[in-house]
Amino acid sequence: MAIKKYQQLKKYYARISHLQYAQRILMWDEAVMMPEGAQEARASAVATLNLTIHRMLTAKRMKSLIDQARHDDTLETWDAMNLKLIEKKYIRSVSLPSWLAEESAKAAILCEQAWRKLRPENNWKDFLPFFEKVFNLVREAAEREGQALGMTAYDALLDLYAPGFSQKNIDIIFSQLKQALHPLVTQIIGRQSDDAAVAPVGPFPVESQRNLGLAVMNALCFDFTRGRLDISHHPFCSGGPSDVRMTTRYTEHEFLSSLFGICHETGHALYEQGLPGVWVDQPVGQIDSMVMHESQSLLIEMEVCRSMPFIKYLQPLLVQRFGDQPAFTFENLFRLVTRVTPGYIRVDADEVTYPMHVMLRYELEKALFSGELSIQDLPAAWNDLMVRYLGLSTAGNVKNGVMQDVHWPGGAFGYFPAYTLGRMMAAQLFTVFSERHPHSSGEVQSGKFNHLHNWLSENIYQAASSLPVQELLTRITGKPLEAGYFLDHIRARYLGG
Amino acid sequence: MAIKKYQQLKKYYARISHLQYAQRILMWDEAVMMPEGAQEARASAVATLNLTIHRMLTAKRMKSLIDQARHDDTLETWDAMNLKLIEKKYIRSVSLPSWLAEESAKAAILCEQAWRKLRPENNWKDFLPFFEKVFNLVREAAEREGQALGMTAYDALLDLYAPGFSQKNIDIIFSQLKQALHPLVTQIIGRQSDDAAVAPVGPFPVESQRNLGLAVMNALCFDFTRGRLDISHHPFCSGGPSDVRMTTRYTEHEFLSSLFGICHETGHALYEQGLPGVWVDQPVGQIDSMVMHESQSLLIEMEVCRSMPFIKYLQPLLVQRFGDQPAFTFENLFRLVTRVTPGYIRVDADEVTYPMHVMLRYELEKALFSGELSIQDLPAAWNDLMVRYLGLSTAGNVKNGVMQDVHWPGGAFGYFPAYTLGRMMAAQLFTVFSERHPHSSGEVQSGKFNHLHNWLSENIYQAASSLPVQELLTRITGKPLEAGYFLDHIRARYLGG
Repeated sequence: MAIKKYQQLKKYYARISHLQYAQRILMWDEAVMMPEGAQEARASAVATLNLTIHRMLTAKRMKSLIDQARHDDTLETWDAMNLKLIEKKYIRSVSLPSWLAEESAKAAILCEQAWRKLRPENNWKDFLPFFEKVFNLVREAAEREGQALGMTAYDALLDLYAPGFSQKNIDIIFSQLKQALHPLVTQIIGRQSDDAAVAPVGPFPVESQRNLGLAVMNALCFDFTRGRLDISHHPFCSGGPSDVRMTTRYTEHEFLSSLFGICHETGHALYEQGLPGVWVDQPVGQIDSMVMHESQSLLIEMEVCRSMPFIKYLQPLLVQRFGDQPAFTFENLFRLVTRVTPGYIRVDADEVTYPMHVMLRYELEKALFSGELSIQDLPAAWNDLMVRYLGLSTAGNVKNGVMQDVHWPGGAFGYFPAYTLGRMMAAQLFTVFSERHPHSSGEVQSGKFNHLHNWLSENIYQAASSLPVQELLTRITGKPLEAGYFLDHIRARYLGG
Repeated sequence: MAIKKYQQLKKYYARISHLQYAQRILMWDEAVMMPEGAQEARASAVATLNLTIHRMLTAKRMKSLIDQARHDDTLETWDAMNLKLIEKKYIRSVSLPSWLAEESAKAAILCEQAWRKLRPENNWKDFLPFFEKVFNLVREAAEREGQALGMTAYDALLDLYAPGFSQKNIDIIFSQLKQALHPLVTQIIGRQSDDAAVAPVGPFPVESQRNLGLAVMNALCFDFTRGRLDISHHPFCSGGPSDVRMTTRYTEHEFLSSLFGICHETGHALYEQGLPGVWVDQPVGQIDSMVMHESQSLLIEMEVCRSMPFIKYLQPLLVQRFGDQPAFTFENLFRLVTRVTPGYIRVDADEVTYPMHVMLRYELEKALFSGELSIQDLPAAWNDLMVRYLGLSTAGNVKNGVMQDVHWPGGAFGYFPAYTLGRMMAAQLFTVFSERHPHSSGEVQSGKFNHLHNWLSENIYQAASSLPVQELLTRITGKPLEAGYFLDHIRARYLGG
């Protein structure tokens, strides 16, 4: 009886997944295909889908099916985990009154729109009221969700993107990271100042860049019968396991940015395509952890594609498409893709300074949620930390300071740590893979990625969300997440040899 | 109070419209963008959206809002019509038990899949069981809907696509048409046999064809901020008023087919784009009648774009893109686009023989629904009529006979008459427009379509579904639909002058 109820719950939840997939395709379409005049119609459609999904998640039927399925003690591991994940989604959804869900969504849209207009104007003053509203609503929602889940508001937010991590254990990992990374940055910059990189000379025709990207995706084992590559303003990866929508953008005077955008998104895409097909519509078969998701994109982009073996595979592809030029030596290309330069903008940061950007935002989020810091004082607090972490002042420069990212205006507080936790996880995973497959760098150099793909597939993709992410990591690498692997990687790549 | 209920009903119905728009974008994406591996996931998503919409249409809340709104006697014309249209949708939806709605949808999908495979094999025998199942379910649904609406099953189907028309009045119109058209076909073929047309010599590069199509769309007043043109296997027009998705397909050895596909779909698109914006999410602001929809595509394609003035506008565009050649004289181009040849395939038919194809299917549908004809005997009955109407035998040739169209396998019985009713409506409308705007052919010749667009916009597009289609037609042309205008057009274009 309880099994039957659980089967009904699965069927019910599958419908929610179908609508979420529809929503992702609509959002891809919005970024890639939609004519500009359709903005209002599209916003209404997405809002109605949101509402429909929220109603299904909070329906009495959902609760009663969960309650009855919970009495079944014969569920196998995956099903038990699936039930747990569904229940958590229910608890979160039902803890929010629908006015709050709607208000938050609306405030976030308005604030994002204001941000798009006011950021170029460096206009913090007019942005502040929108931003405060978003923050207050997010905090209220997080408090309610935290209460329902038995955690603090900020932990409830972290748990959304990085389940299994809390402020307490992120503090430990980040403090280890910060202490070691700070002196490393100075050391690496000193070392790199001696050898300037030669800049590639364009133009690089868009068609050739696209063609290069497709060749690299193909080599990395992207399955084109279940996905495609298009163009959008910012690269992203969305859709679903059998319908992965990757995007990048091109400019004729430069090709590295589109290419590494593609490498990064291919890492996300391979993870999606590698999920176990039979579980596609259930939470246990989807990717619960943005930490693990980012670890997969960063493993491909940072560990694999910015390595010397990959440069050796890539170089003839470049020459073939763009002709030879002085910038296209192995050493110079490697220099170009491993340049370390402290800068204002997180998304443009190299892998060494990137975690400093994340830790800055993490410190500010903690202070905001503990009440130590108020929204109005953010620009000053940002500037303080920026000077301390990267030696750069953002005084009077909110555009490239606190207003640079879309996350906070969009209501995504608690997201940033997932990037750096994911980066460390990528290093930990790739170190273990390399140890177990000592020939892997030779394979990469000859454009063979099947071994890596199989290993990731068996160990990570196929496991989906059947285990909490720290347990999965421990099963694969013998240890929960730690900063050491990443720091070793930085030392080896930038100071070693 | 009742007004407030009516406002709530509008809000409720708007959500249904949002989901329908989402569904159309998903189906566009399926035909144009989707990787093949996503078929199953997409089918599930569309089915879940269907189910969600059906549940909303049949919800108790819908019924109670309608019942309460009906007591309001202060509603203005558009609102009163809107309420009526919503109510009709409710009556139809609720008359179908959900098992029947689901079974019909499933059977239609399976039958369409079987059709796709078995049509090329000319395999009627294996197709028959799928087809019978679809027919039986459609008949059962139509009987229930007919009972709820107080009409016969076949009239209930006709009413779906051609509201305001029934078997009784279609019989009258079609019999007038058939009697006059049959001798005309013979006469026209005799006359055309004297002057052979010179075939254009390709290749015609796809990029130039696309570019030509965009130029024509632009001249015809298509608004590219609210729509786009892409490629699919069969041309279609979908999306929504602010997001019109038109498609065509290209082959390098021929350009007229893609071009006139574009002209046809532009007619549909202009209608969608011209609907009154404030009513976009309500039935009264949407297009209720496929007859009127087809009249708009056929008015643009047949009345405007296959006329000599349009050829004179088009010819320099062709020379500019494809270079000059003997086929590109005005007279020859006109001959090419007005060639009359009886053939097996409806979609390839010229405007003179096309109605014969439709009337054939109409006769068969009537016989099927009256019980005079059984599904098994369709191929023989088809052959009989085909010999009688067009002098062609389809014995042993089901592929190009009864199995040629996707409509019946997909469950769309009662649809075909809308094509020919729409064609006649186009003739009636265009005749009246031309009488009132005697300079219009000169304008078309110089590529100016604004007068026509404004007239259609004011008289038809902006009226949306605020009036029953026959009333709207009478308001514009002084008469309800009759075959005379179309027959006059045929005589003038093919025998006159």
